[in-house]
Amino acid sequence: MKPKISLVTLGVKDLEASTKFYKKLGFKEDENNDGIVFFKLQNLTLALFPREALANDAGVSEEGSGFRAFSLAHNVASAHEVDTSLNVAKKAGAKIIKTGHKASWGGYTGYFADPDGFLWEVAWNPFMEL
Amino acid sequence: MKPKISLVTLGVKDLEASTKFYKKLGFKEDENNDGIVFFKLQNLTLALFPREALANDAGVSEEGSGFRAFSLAHNVASAHEVDTSLNVAKKAGAKIIKTGHKASWGGYTGYFADPDGFLWEVAWNPFMEL
Repeated sequence: MKPKISLVTLGVKDLEASTKFYKKLGFKEDENNDGIVFFKLQNLTLALFPREALANDAGVSEEGSGFRAFSLAHNVASAHEVDTSLNVAKKAGAKIIKTGHKASWGGYTGYFADPDGFLWEVAWNPFMEL
Repeated sequence: MKPKISLVTLGVKDLEASTKFYKKLGFKEDENNDGIVFFKLQNLTLALFPREALANDAGVSEEGSGFRAFSLAHNVASAHEVDTSLNVAKKAGAKIIKTGHKASWGGYTGYFADPDGFLWEVAWNPFMEL
């Protein structure tokens, strides 16, 4: 397998609401086909798909709750940009989980949750190119 | 916010076992710092972090079970390559959730689960550049 992730698909409760949310973050809807919405990002594609449809597609039960044990990170060029990005997310309707703060590893970071509770970290990391 | 995802972080039960698994898929470990492992992929970074540490980092409860409501997709250039990739994953210890098959949308697809049950779709999509 080549070292790549082509798509991240989020299984959402309300496709319309989630699509609106990600548009407000500044992501551009690329395609909307058969109940799946694609946002072509700079480096990969983010897809939104109804939660039940995603479970069906994989052939797994859609039962599940609580911590999903993953996060998506959006890295930016400065601590200031972390704060402004969190603010954009808040205005779009995100829940701010952790406001911007100095991280133990030396950068600056905060977290927001999307309408389904999917965790996004917004971070400035001066030590890694991300 | 710029349209990008810099990192996908998976919160895993056994960091060593998961690291081995992703190396067997052909991903190259880039850094292993303070209990977080980074794989620099072609287009973004995949990070493995202990599940509890990820919950702590975000400041959320680590309670949760069942369907995580997301999948990662690995797109390849042909139906044959879907099958060979699923085979590589199987040999690495993945559970094959769905073997390669023609998809309703016209491509060819299958699913495997990593050691923590994270869902990966391996797909050939002749209609989208992914």
